[in-house]
Amino acid sequence: MIQDGKTIAAVATGSGGAIAVIRLSGSEAFVIADAFFKARNGVSVCDMAPFTLSYGDFVASDGEIVDDLLLSKFVAPRSYTGEDMVELSVHASEYIKSRILEQLIARGARPAQPGEYTLRAYVNGKMDMLGAESVADIIASDSRAGHTLALSQMRGGYTSEFALLRSELVDLQSLLELELDFGEEDVEFADRSKLAESVDRTEHKLTRLIDSYVQGSAIKEGVPVAIIGAPNSGKSTLLNALLNEDRAIVSSIAGTTRDSIEETLRLGDVVFRFIDTAGMRATDDPLEAIGIEKARQKAQKARVVFLTVDISDHSHADDLIAAIAGMRVEAGVSADTDTVILLNKCDKLPAWPTDDFLSAIASATGTEVVPISAKTQNGLDRLRSHLLSLFSGIVTTESVLITSARHLEQLTATRTALVATRTALDTGMPTDLIAAELRTALHHLGLLTGEITTDEILGNIFSRFCIGK
Amino acid sequence: MIQDGKTIAAVATGSGGAIAVIRLSGSEAFVIADAFFKARNGVSVCDMAPFTLSYGDFVASDGEIVDDLLLSKFVAPRSYTGEDMVELSVHASEYIKSRILEQLIARGARPAQPGEYTLRAYVNGKMDMLGAESVADIIASDSRAGHTLALSQMRGGYTSEFALLRSELVDLQSLLELELDFGEEDVEFADRSKLAESVDRTEHKLTRLIDSYVQGSAIKEGVPVAIIGAPNSGKSTLLNALLNEDRAIVSSIAGTTRDSIEETLRLGDVVFRFIDTAGMRATDDPLEAIGIEKARQKAQKARVVFLTVDISDHSHADDLIAAIAGMRVEAGVSADTDTVILLNKCDKLPAWPTDDFLSAIASATGTEVVPISAKTQNGLDRLRSHLLSLFSGIVTTESVLITSARHLEQLTATRTALVATRTALDTGMPTDLIAAELRTALHHLGLLTGEITTDEILGNIFSRFCIGK
Repeated sequence: MIQDGKTIAAVATGSGGAIAVIRLSGSEAFVIADAFFKARNGVSVCDMAPFTLSYGDFVASDGEIVDDLLLSKFVAPRSYTGEDMVELSVHASEYIKSRILEQLIARGARPAQPGEYTLRAYVNGKMDMLGAESVADIIASDSRAGHTLALSQMRGGYTSEFALLRSELVDLQSLLELELDFGEEDVEFADRSKLAESVDRTEHKLTRLIDSYVQGSAIKEGVPVAIIGAPNSGKSTLLNALLNEDRAIVSSIAGTTRDSIEETLRLGDVVFRFIDTAGMRATDDPLEAIGIEKARQKAQKARVVFLTVDISDHSHADDLIAAIAGMRVEAGVSADTDTVILLNKCDKLPAWPTDDFLSAIASATGTEVVPISAKTQNGLDRLRSHLLSLFSGIVTTESVLITSARHLEQLTATRTALVATRTALDTGMPTDLIAAELRTALHHLGLLTGEITTDEILGNIFSRFCIGK
Repeated sequence: MIQDGKTIAAVATGSGGAIAVIRLSGSEAFVIADAFFKARNGVSVCDMAPFTLSYGDFVASDGEIVDDLLLSKFVAPRSYTGEDMVELSVHASEYIKSRILEQLIARGARPAQPGEYTLRAYVNGKMDMLGAESVADIIASDSRAGHTLALSQMRGGYTSEFALLRSELVDLQSLLELELDFGEEDVEFADRSKLAESVDRTEHKLTRLIDSYVQGSAIKEGVPVAIIGAPNSGKSTLLNALLNEDRAIVSSIAGTTRDSIEETLRLGDVVFRFIDTAGMRATDDPLEAIGIEKARQKAQKARVVFLTVDISDHSHADDLIAAIAGMRVEAGVSADTDTVILLNKCDKLPAWPTDDFLSAIASATGTEVVPISAKTQNGLDRLRSHLLSLFSGIVTTESVLITSARHLEQLTATRTALVATRTALDTGMPTDLIAAELRTALHHLGLLTGEITTDEILGNIFSRFCIGK
């Protein structure tokens, strides 16, 4: 990221719409705006009171009246970036937006990089790094759960959790450093067993955070639900019925879905990613075999698996139970994964399966069983509410769930260093070696929270933002 | 259009982006905003000074902190709509936008109809109808010329032209009405020949305005440029070369482009719509014949025709001239249309055509001749600058060009009534009949300028706006 202190300009709103907002931030913001803005009340931008609005014209350097607009003035440090800022609210025409940007740039502003406004907010101490990172998540969030997570991260619930971890590690380290200062005297100030206890406690917290990534990333990206089953068991029809649209090709020729199809759907507060997969069966077709292998991988990575069975293919409960067991082995679904057995095509049966029948299947398979007809959409409401119940109340404003791969990476590195610390303690290593391991742990935690930064880290974080933020 | 005086709410910015603006307008705007907005400085929206900004949280009725945001306050009548208004500048997440709108609506706001903010601005006298109509054009404009036209319409250059027309007609009418008051006495106050002169003058102005529609709508929608020529003369290759993209299917099999393909391109201040057409030749294929008939129609409606000829097919100048003449007859291009003859595939010739050769073709055909190679892109710069020269300086801030089909319709009806007035004068009709014709003319002019409105007219005008404007 360039940090040249120049005044930056960008359109901050999306494409289309009636109005667009152009942001100008930096020490020259007011002077540059004054070169073009002719207020109806005659007051220049420099002379405007802070945090007020002014109506006027944007007059280009060649005299062209580009638009009439509203100008908002923010005075440092009370602005998003912490710098002097001006926001121009203009008509959302492509011509107006590009002409105004061109004029601002000709007068000395520089086009903003993606995330540069937020980077400046971070650099100017308006938010910590974890807060700045979560801004992009807030903008991208399309479910209440994802939004709540991102907002709680921005508001520092996340930060205070890491601050606590850090202070525990710092306490340990200071004890060890004290010993090192008196190193010649060969004294042990720190009680080794108490140290070990502290390390274990911190490692336990780290593990809990690391484990929360599965949940956190599912909330952020959408909970992956793989739909698996034999060819022609109605997987695509089910996906379409859930989405109420015709996205997947549905036909009665077995093996239509060679590759997997993903669709996202918001149910209640959570977004789900439904993954339609190739039907599983023994095959000689190498292309189909690739599709089946992919389906297997999707099922293994999914958070929830919908195992569809064509109930009309199986005349007896025993036969059905054997088919389900076979499919689970075939797909290699782990025991941890929430699995729902969908008895599909119940519309083809003379009567809807009885509760007794369903209980028998459920107890034999140890799994939730839902009878449905993807074709007539019978039973889908029950399926949806079961799915939602798996995730109800999972996210509250107090939740601290890891959602970022970058955070996961640093937390894992921190834990690895802590484990090494523990080993050093156990094997009676000299104090300076134990202290070195602990410093590594602190280093990774510092990289995570932004207490230690590098240009590369900043670049990675802010480049995933959109321009104008 | 519903005009229920309720407070209306809508997202005014486009999709995507970093920030979104939600507009709230109406007498309840401040009270509704206060139900959710918790300012950092503790000042309620009702107590905020007009035209100031406040930073705070949007807290939903269930206590959820939906976002932190900037709130702008506008007090009637000094706002876009002329009503009390609040603008919320929020993070552009789909979740945040929909949740805030839902909350505002639950508290008594109504979702705004397309164009409803501008309709209210019109109803509250913030702009006249012609100005309000041009707002949608300003937003849609993607070229400087289109933008200048729309802005000059909004700023009233357009309105004053019609006001002048109207005052001339009103003067004529008052003379006739005066005569009618003294009708019993059979006096002619108005000098019939002077009346006829006035009618002619006004009709002349109307005709000029009506004729400007061809130009005006071309500027607004893009100047239509039809590319015609024999099969395989390189029309699609030319279109792609102009667009620098692979939109049209290019192949060496004659007759590839059955239907026409349109692409817009901005050159300098003007947007052009290039129309690739089916190759013209005698054919028995009914499908191809339909394509050729369409090409003919496109050529006849175009403002500019590019007539492409494969120069490598014609060994002599005479042969080439005959081919061009044949193609012009075949296409039925009118003499008014700017035609450019493109000698394509010059790269296949041993040498680029000499100036003498080109002059000979130009003088024989009476048309601009440009040698090009669509394949190597040679000559295209000259073609572009020639095209631009046809439209340079066409639009200035003083231009009054008709761009709206609705305006054209009313102007034409006004002129028809004026012609009838003239006929009535010429044939010595009684004064009350002449006056009736003149009233019809004034009625149509009134419908145009908004002095006479109906719900239907308002509905038609504002429904073409986007929501939030």
